Amino acid sequence: MATRWGIVSAGRISKDFTTALAIRGRDEHEVVAVAARKREDAERFVGELDLPHARVYGSYEDLCRDSNVEVVYVGSINTVHFEVSKMALDHGKAVICEKPLGLNLGQTKEIIQQAREKQLFLMEAMWSRCNPVYRKLAEEIRAGAIGEVMHSYGSSGAPISYPGSRVREKELGGSAVLDIGIYPIQASLLCMGDEKPTAIMATGHTNDLNVDEVIACNLQFKNGRSATLDMNSTLLLPNEFYVAGTKGIIKLSSPIWGSSRMESPNGVYEVPKVPGDYVFDNAGLLAYEADEVRRCLCQGLKESPLVPHSLTLLMADIMEEIRNQIGAETYY
Amino acid sequence: MATRWGIVSAGRISKDFTTALAIRGRDEHEVVAVAARKREDAERFVGELDLPHARVYGSYEDLCRDSNVEVVYVGSINTVHFEVSKMALDHGKAVICEKPLGLNLGQTKEIIQQAREKQLFLMEAMWSRCNPVYRKLAEEIRAGAIGEVMHSYGSSGAPISYPGSRVREKELGGSAVLDIGIYPIQASLLCMGDEKPTAIMATGHTNDLNVDEVIACNLQFKNGRSATLDMNSTLLLPNEFYVAGTKGIIKLSSPIWGSSRMESPNGVYEVPKVPGDYVFDNAGLLAYEADEVRRCLCQGLKESPLVPHSLTLLMADIMEEIRNQIGAETYY
Repeated sequence: MATRWGIVSAGRISKDFTTALAIRGRDEHEVVAVAARKREDAERFVGELDLPHARVYGSYEDLCRDSNVEVVYVGSINTVHFEVSKMALDHGKAVICEKPLGLNLGQTKEIIQQAREKQLFLMEAMWSRCNPVYRKLAEEIRAGAIGEVMHSYGSSGAPISYPGSRVREKELGGSAVLDIGIYPIQASLLCMGDEKPTAIMATGHTNDLNVDEVIACNLQFKNGRSATLDMNSTLLLPNEFYVAGTKGIIKLSSPIWGSSRMESPNGVYEVPKVPGDYVFDNAGLLAYEADEVRRCLCQGLKESPLVPHSLTLLMADIMEEIRNQIGAETYY
Repeated sequence: MATRWGIVSAGRISKDFTTALAIRGRDEHEVVAVAARKREDAERFVGELDLPHARVYGSYEDLCRDSNVEVVYVGSINTVHFEVSKMALDHGKAVICEKPLGLNLGQTKEIIQQAREKQLFLMEAMWSRCNPVYRKLAEEIRAGAIGEVMHSYGSSGAPISYPGSRVREKELGGSAVLDIGIYPIQASLLCMGDEKPTAIMATGHTNDLNVDEVIACNLQFKNGRSATLDMNSTLLLPNEFYVAGTKGIIKLSSPIWGSSRMESPNGVYEVPKVPGDYVFDNAGLLAYEADEVRRCLCQGLKESPLVPHSLTLLMADIMEEIRNQIGAETYY
C-alpha cells in the first residue's frame, strides 16, 4: 500500500519534494492532500504537479484533520515548523519537517517530546543523511578507508540574504546558520560519529536586523579531532566538503547539501541523477529521504535511524551555541 | 654578471633552492660558497649538486666573511634564522632567509631594522609570492575577475610533527603555525590586499611540549571580509585554497605553498613544471624566487615589492597572535 502524504505549503521545497515523491510511482508514494495559507496556491500546486486526486486545503489544520493523510511533510517557512509539526502530531499524523525542526533548542525538544509521548513518527528532513553519497561516506569511515578521522571542513554559502528573503528577515526566522549552516554541521557530525563537540568557537557577523549572515566556526571533539566550517548567506562559496583521516582524505563535491559525488582513496562514487525538474540543485535526491520515511512507517519505527532525534537535538544545540556566540537573534 | 650566492646550511630546502638556481644557467645565478655546521655536509652538498667551484665552509660566519658572496640564502633551521640573517647583514651581505624570518615579531622587527639601517637587501623567502600562480591570482583580483573579494579558505597540513622533527620539538623552534601555517596566511592576505586583520580568532591544540600542532583560525577584515584557515602538522590536509568574491570563485590546487594551477572564472592557468629533482613538491618554483632576488639586486632595491618587509611583519604579527591565543610556546 502506498504511503499517503499530506504536503504542507506550496512553496519551492514542497514542489521539489513532491516531484521526487513521484519518482518511485504511486504504488509507493501518493500525495493525498496539499495545503497552503492561500487555497489558490495549493490549487495551482496540484495543477502544476499533476495531482488530480489530492485534496486541496487553504488551512494547514484542515489538512492535519484529513483522516486520509498518513504523514505530513512540513515544507513551510522556518518560523512555523514548530506550530505545524505540533499540530500535525496533535492530529495523530506522522511528521517529516524541513530543517531546522525548531528555531531553537527549546522548540526542538518540545516537538520531539510530543512525538515520543504520542508514539508518532517524527523526522527532521535532513535529506543529506538519506543521500547515498553520505551513506557511502559513513560506510567508508566505518570501514577505515581513511584511518582515524581527525579533521573536516565544509562550506555552505549562497547569496540568498536579500531584502524580503526568508534568510535575511527576522520576522521570517532568518539565519544563515539555521538555513544553510546546518549542512556542514551535519556533515561534520557524521564524520565524528555524531558526538557532542567538546568545544565550539564561532565568529562572524550579523546584518542590520541582527540576523546571522557570515559565520566561521570550529568544533572540537575528543581525541584531538576537529571540524572547521564556513557558512554564508551573502556569498557563493564552493559548498564542498572534505574529511581527513590518518590514512587519507575523502572529498564530497558541491553542493554539500545534496552532493552526488564522492572521491575517496577507494575511488569515485557517484549517485545517478534522479529524473524530474527541480528548483534546487540535485533535489531529486529528496527521493531517498521519502523512501526512508516510507521504510520507517512500514516498519512501525518512530524515528529514522538515519536522522535520529538525537542528531536533530545535537544540531539544534550546536546552532544555538554558534548563534549565541556571534550575538545573533536567537528566536526564544 | 651572475648573482653570486652563498648557501647557508646543506639541508633539504637548501638543496631544492640550489637545484632551482641552476635552472637559469650560471650566467644568472652562481653558487660561490656553501656552509654547513659540519664541513663534510657542505662538501657532500657541493658534490651532489655539482658545484665544483663553490667554496666550502664548516661555519656560517666564515661564509658570511667571504668577499665573493653577494647574497646569502639562509636555509638553516628556524631557530637560527635570526642569528644567521643578522650575521650576514653584519658582514654587508644581501640576505634572503627562509620563512619564518624570525621566531617571533620582535626578532622579525630587529632583523628588518638592521637591514634598513645598513641599506642592505633583505627578503623573507616567501616563495609563493614569486610563483606565477599567485602573481596571476593577484592580477585577477585586481582586474575584478571575481568582483569584490569577500572570503577565503586555505588548508596547510602534513604529518611532519614526529619525535625529533623540527616542527615538533621546542628546542628546534617547532610550530605548525610558523612552519606551514604561514602559507594560508600569506594566501589570505594576498586576497585582502595585505591589510591588517581587524580581528583574529584562533583555536586548536599544542602537543605535550607546548608546541602548536592543530590550529583553526579566522581573520576578519574591514567591510565584512574574512578568511578561514586550517593548519596542521600531524595530518595531511587537501592543501588547497579558494577565494570567493561577489562575482565568482578562484581555486588554487594543492600544494598551497607551491601551487601550479589556478581555476578562475576566466579559465585555467597553469605554470609549467620547472625541471630538476626536488625534495619538496613543486619546489622548482623556487626558481622564480631566485629570479626576484636577482632582479632586486640588479636594480639596487633593498626589499622586494613582491615580498615587502611590511608583509613579513604583518605575517609575524598574525602568527604571534594565533600562537598566543592557543597558548603555544612563543619563543620570546
